[in-house]
Amino acid sequence: MPVPKSKQLRRSYGFEEVAIVPGDVTINPEQTNIDLEIEGFTFSVPILAAAMDAVTDVNFAIKMSKLGGLAVLNLEGLQTRYDNPQEILAEIAQAPTSAVTPLLQKVYSQPIKENLIGERVQAIKKGGGVCAVSMLPANTKHFAPIAAEAGADILVVQSTVTTARHKSKSSRGLIFTELCKLVSMPIVVGNCVSYGACLELMRTGISAILVGVGPGAACTSREVLGIGVPQVTATIDCAAARDRYLEESGRYVPIITDGGFRRGGDLCKAIAAGADGAMIGSIFAQTKEAPGLGHHWGMANPHAALPRGTRIKVGTTGTLEQILFGPASVTDGSQNLVGALRTAMGVCGAATIRDMHKAEMVIAPSITTEGKSWQMAQS
Amino acid sequence: MPVPKSKQLRRSYGFEEVAIVPGDVTINPEQTNIDLEIEGFTFSVPILAAAMDAVTDVNFAIKMSKLGGLAVLNLEGLQTRYDNPQEILAEIAQAPTSAVTPLLQKVYSQPIKENLIGERVQAIKKGGGVCAVSMLPANTKHFAPIAAEAGADILVVQSTVTTARHKSKSSRGLIFTELCKLVSMPIVVGNCVSYGACLELMRTGISAILVGVGPGAACTSREVLGIGVPQVTATIDCAAARDRYLEESGRYVPIITDGGFRRGGDLCKAIAAGADGAMIGSIFAQTKEAPGLGHHWGMANPHAALPRGTRIKVGTTGTLEQILFGPASVTDGSQNLVGALRTAMGVCGAATIRDMHKAEMVIAPSITTEGKSWQMAQS
Amino acid sequence: MPVPKSKQLRRSYGFEEVAIVPGDVTINPEQTNIDLEIEGFTFSVPILAAAMDAVTDVNFAIKMSKLGGLAVLNLEGLQTRYDNPQEILAEIAQAPTSAVTPLLQKVYSQPIKENLIGERVQAIKKGGGVCAVSMLPANTKHFAPIAAEAGADILVVQSTVTTARHKSKSSRGLIFTELCKLVSMPIVVGNCVSYGACLELMRTGISAILVGVGPGAACTSREVLGIGVPQVTATIDCAAARDRYLEESGRYVPIITDGGFRRGGDLCKAIAAGADGAMIGSIFAQTKEAPGLGHHWGMANPHAALPRGTRIKVGTTGTLEQILFGPASVTDGSQNLVGALRTAMGVCGAATIRDMHKAEMVIAPSITTEGKSWQMAQS
Amino acid sequence: MPVPKSKQLRRSYGFEEVAIVPGDVTINPEQTNIDLEIEGFTFSVPILAAAMDAVTDVNFAIKMSKLGGLAVLNLEGLQTRYDNPQEILAEIAQAPTSAVTPLLQKVYSQPIKENLIGERVQAIKKGGGVCAVSMLPANTKHFAPIAAEAGADILVVQSTVTTARHKSKSSRGLIFTELCKLVSMPIVVGNCVSYGACLELMRTGISAILVGVGPGAACTSREVLGIGVPQVTATIDCAAARDRYLEESGRYVPIITDGGFRRGGDLCKAIAAGADGAMIGSIFAQTKEAPGLGHHWGMANPHAALPRGTRIKVGTTGTLEQILFGPASVTDGSQNLVGALRTAMGVCGAATIRDMHKAEMVIAPSITTEGKSWQMAQS
Repeated sequence: MPVPKSKQLRRSYGFEEVAIVPGDVTINPEQTNIDLEIEGFTFSVPILAAAMDAVTDVNFAIKMSKLGGLAVLNLEGLQTRYDNPQEILAEIAQAPTSAVTPLLQKVYSQPIKENLIGERVQAIKKGGGVCAVSMLPANTKHFAPIAAEAGADILVVQSTVTTARHKSKSSRGLIFTELCKLVSMPIVVGNCVSYGACLELMRTGISAILVGVGPGAACTSREVLGIGVPQVTATIDCAAARDRYLEESGRYVPIITDGGFRRGGDLCKAIAAGADGAMIGSIFAQTKEAPGLGHHWGMANPHAALPRGTRIKVGTTGTLEQILFGPASVTDGSQNLVGALRTAMGVCGAATIRDMHKAEMVIAPSITTEGKSWQMAQS
Repeated sequence: MPVPKSKQLRRSYGFEEVAIVPGDVTINPEQTNIDLEIEGFTFSVPILAAAMDAVTDVNFAIKMSKLGGLAVLNLEGLQTRYDNPQEILAEIAQAPTSAVTPLLQKVYSQPIKENLIGERVQAIKKGGGVCAVSMLPANTKHFAPIAAEAGADILVVQSTVTTARHKSKSSRGLIFTELCKLVSMPIVVGNCVSYGACLELMRTGISAILVGVGPGAACTSREVLGIGVPQVTATIDCAAARDRYLEESGRYVPIITDGGFRRGGDLCKAIAAGADGAMIGSIFAQTKEAPGLGHHWGMANPHAALPRGTRIKVGTTGTLEQILFGPASVTDGSQNLVGALRTAMGVCGAATIRDMHKAEMVIAPSITTEGKSWQMAQS
Repeated sequence: MPVPKSKQLRRSYGFEEVAIVPGDVTINPEQTNIDLEIEGFTFSVPILAAAMDAVTDVNFAIKMSKLGGLAVLNLEGLQTRYDNPQEILAEIAQAPTSAVTPLLQKVYSQPIKENLIGERVQAIKKGGGVCAVSMLPANTKHFAPIAAEAGADILVVQSTVTTARHKSKSSRGLIFTELCKLVSMPIVVGNCVSYGACLELMRTGISAILVGVGPGAACTSREVLGIGVPQVTATIDCAAARDRYLEESGRYVPIITDGGFRRGGDLCKAIAAGADGAMIGSIFAQTKEAPGLGHHWGMANPHAALPRGTRIKVGTTGTLEQILFGPASVTDGSQNLVGALRTAMGVCGAATIRDMHKAEMVIAPSITTEGKSWQMAQS
Repeated sequence: MPVPKSKQLRRSYGFEEVAIVPGDVTINPEQTNIDLEIEGFTFSVPILAAAMDAVTDVNFAIKMSKLGGLAVLNLEGLQTRYDNPQEILAEIAQAPTSAVTPLLQKVYSQPIKENLIGERVQAIKKGGGVCAVSMLPANTKHFAPIAAEAGADILVVQSTVTTARHKSKSSRGLIFTELCKLVSMPIVVGNCVSYGACLELMRTGISAILVGVGPGAACTSREVLGIGVPQVTATIDCAAARDRYLEESGRYVPIITDGGFRRGGDLCKAIAAGADGAMIGSIFAQTKEAPGLGHHWGMANPHAALPRGTRIKVGTTGTLEQILFGPASVTDGSQNLVGALRTAMGVCGAATIRDMHKAEMVIAPSITTEGKSWQMAQS
């Protein structure tokens, strides 16, 4: 009996399955412009450091800002629960593996101290950094004004999945159009992965979108919830929403691919897929400046009822400057991210990020160690 | 020479190859309704425990029922062959690996004691549980009336592949329309995987369908017989049959995806693919309440001429309540199945199971450990 | 610049990538008929043992014949180069791994003794077996008459790739239409994998076709020469040629899938793909009766200039009878091949091999151990 | 919300994913002609040795030439930076793994001595070899005349990605039409992978194209830059450009697939995909004649800011003659490349390389060890 057309599944792609095709024209890498603009702020490095406790603290944020990028401070993590978060971070780094999840559950169960929100923001500003802070949608009404008053520059509203329409019995939920009126900062919202959700969020007036749910092939959301879209497809679809929104409104809302980056090539692929910038976690957890002391963990690991992921030892491989600009001391592509991006844009003949959006990509077999080969190459 | 169009092969998909796309609307997980209805019975947890000796015995069935789900007792396993099945189960658990298959062949060669059928059913009823019992199609005429008389609530007729039309020289075979008249209980039939077979079974008047032959990528039927359809495709096709049958008859016959579940994400994917419920074996074999004492084996392992699979040490990871509702003590997604389902429905904006059937899914690269990444997430 | 349509590559499939879909009707396995007919000979077991020195010798051929199948004796292997091949076989089995390839090159460099051709054929006939012998196309003119005179029943002409049209400077090459006139036995020719080559061979008047070049995913021809077509696609294409030839000539020429079988499921898949029979090597090398003494090697390994593959220790797992009919002492599907085939035909509702050709197949994800699951099943 | 058509990704294929289908006609391998012609030079072996320091030095080039192929000397590697490169090569071979990258960065930072360019060219010519030399596009104006004056026969202009249109602020960049007028030698240019870039390069008047960026599944460019196209697709696309250019100009410009070769089968697949020849690195690094002393490294490893890859121990498996013509002492397909190519052409009925371009190919599952099988085969 022939099966009637029913549920159709579209094929989606992650970083490891695609490759960028060199262009018919090449350009000198030094001539490329990789600026990212978020409503009045221009970043010469189109990379955001993730709002994770193993990545961003006050000092990291200042350093990142000075190097041209932007780090986002999580206002609901350890930095606002402890006067001395370094102590807790050291304790996490030293805990034996079996004790990590209970420890994280314990330390994250401490209440947020509102006075610390202002202190952290002011410390970043005092250090000369652009200050971006993140919080959950449900907490924006409460925390956003505090951060604003303290001088925060950019507000990041982030949860696993955020939409413009959230249904809840207990409260009316966050209305982004209202939030945009309430705070005068640019608002970055995430995460989303689909054309429709992205377009609806842009129509609320927000300033940038974080793209990515369950990136990487084995992330927590994908295993535990079955939820996720690989990053290349998510980026292509959200870029289509951005282009559509540009047409209908004349406003260009940048999209920032968030999560799943393991090396420079992934960054280049995200940009070629349509991203205007990238938010990176684990690679930055490996910097000497990272508060995680060579460890990394997701913000879902301390979850009380449904903990996901665990602490990972990522090691410390170089300074933030080295990881952004080189010279690379390792040969696996996890350092000199900016050099890699400029080189890739060069071989694609792309003078700007928006030129790079037009680069051709192919679906290529997944990377295996067996097929490793050696060849002549230079930047 | 051009090859003429001949045998066409359709691509099919398993749990590990797909992911659910978050919706354009989200909903508070607490507001979701996940009821499963089987002809007059309503289960607040849409999960059945498999009719396997390492999973379901009288006590497990009572506990499962009280927690809102349903466990199925195998009337042709150890529970009806031995007055004291615990002894045999302990022997199986303690046997050295090399001795397991012969031991299983021996203990399953004992005859079924008809008096035990009634005793087991009554014990479940006395304990306050809904009593579901399973048997092979060929044995329904003999055993079903015994179970019915003892007070069984739901009859499960299950073999590797069951169809509405079975050809046999020796006897006329089971006619489901006749069985439906013979017993007054709801009848759940399985297993099937295709649109046609499922539709024909529904037309006999039965109450629910078990979907799954050779689920998981490496199951016994697939290796030994070459037979099987991955669970996502099987579920989509059988859901199409259910919807077609609803149209032609006005009767909604739920389909229950059976087998291949390793974690909460798989449950969410089965529901998104169109299932109304899930039948789970190995995850439940890991509960403290499971009679398998940390071991699990398929009902095909004791087969005399073509034994398949073997005893697997699955360990004991938590109570049944923890596995269903959390809090999770592990971070791999094998606990808090209900929490995972409600959370996934929340990010898809699905208030009910039937809403969740409309969730979009994508084909995504298989899960690999290499691509593991860390990210911010919360339920 | 858009790429013009140029070379198109068709996707092809091997055993491990497909699965058979159960039918809408089921049938009792005992009612299935699995006969294979090759021009006047009827085999109750549709399985040929490969013309390899580790598999077939005189005794094996007699035993196989008595059990209902057919074993093919290689007339260009050790059996016709040595009066006492057992000695050489023991030497090969005992050689240290590093010495195997040079040893094989040495022992296979001995000349073929023509008198042994007759002796081996007569020994099989005297033992009551149907006698099938194999040789290279280039040697048929010389050896086929000797075998025929000694009483051989079936002639197998086999090389890696055999076509109806071979171009050679030195000689006119083998013309199959002439060979068919020369010898009065049924002629089985192989190997081929494509529709066109298969159809042309059938038109020469030969009696059966061996299908398979580079089967299995990592076979020698595929690595060293880049040549090969996975067995499911090769079988589907050659079955299409058989059906086309039946239409144009009224003659049904059976196709026998040769190579790549690891377990019963593969046999079932070959038949479902359109094969009338299967030629099996390595599984038979594991029988107590196999001359390889628990070892196996390809006939390309002794090649002087381009040796391929090597001796593999396959072990001895059971008698030939057990492997064909069970009871299985292992649970991996490598025993009771006939039971597996009848069971699979049963769940597909196929009463005959030709019914089984109509079974639906799906492309299913490759088998991985991770996805292993347990489920209820019975034959 | 339906996603509008946006960025489309084409599926591309590498060596390990395809297989060649045998033809309907076969031909004796001895009757095949595998000549490669590059504007007046005819090579009886269509294989180039890569311009890598672990592969080609003066002696290797002479030997390769005498055996019928062509080796390319890198004029910007160790051979022109050191009077006695053997000393440096020995030092690299003996360095502990951790010291390799800094050592390579150091030794490659020495300046090129112009006098050595002439000396190396003259030594190859004096030894009776055809002399091919390579350099970066940016250095051709300076070095090409020196090499030409010394008697070089063929000029190879090579960088990771070379196009006919390169944009640079600092200089006008290399114009190939001018270079073709400047030097009277045939000019081979690379690398490129796309139809458009290849066609534009051919239109400048150059003599041959090197095809390949990021070949192999895990090469440096793919990981670090995200750039690359698998070799089968790159070859098919560039072959389409060659055929198109032949149509429009009447001139046949050969394409040479460069990189990613692990064994004979890969060579056969490149030719079947449309290549006129192959440039091979790592397999030749395993010859007794190779200057790398059993080691191999890419020319990108010494890069100061973005070093990629590392020194690999490849071992020494045979002489150059053995690797080209056999007899093979190993059974993995890395020896007797010419024998493998002629055999593959034989089973495809291809008398010439251009006949072989018409061979059918299929997409076949990736090679896995599990599927390994044994079968009868002979050349």
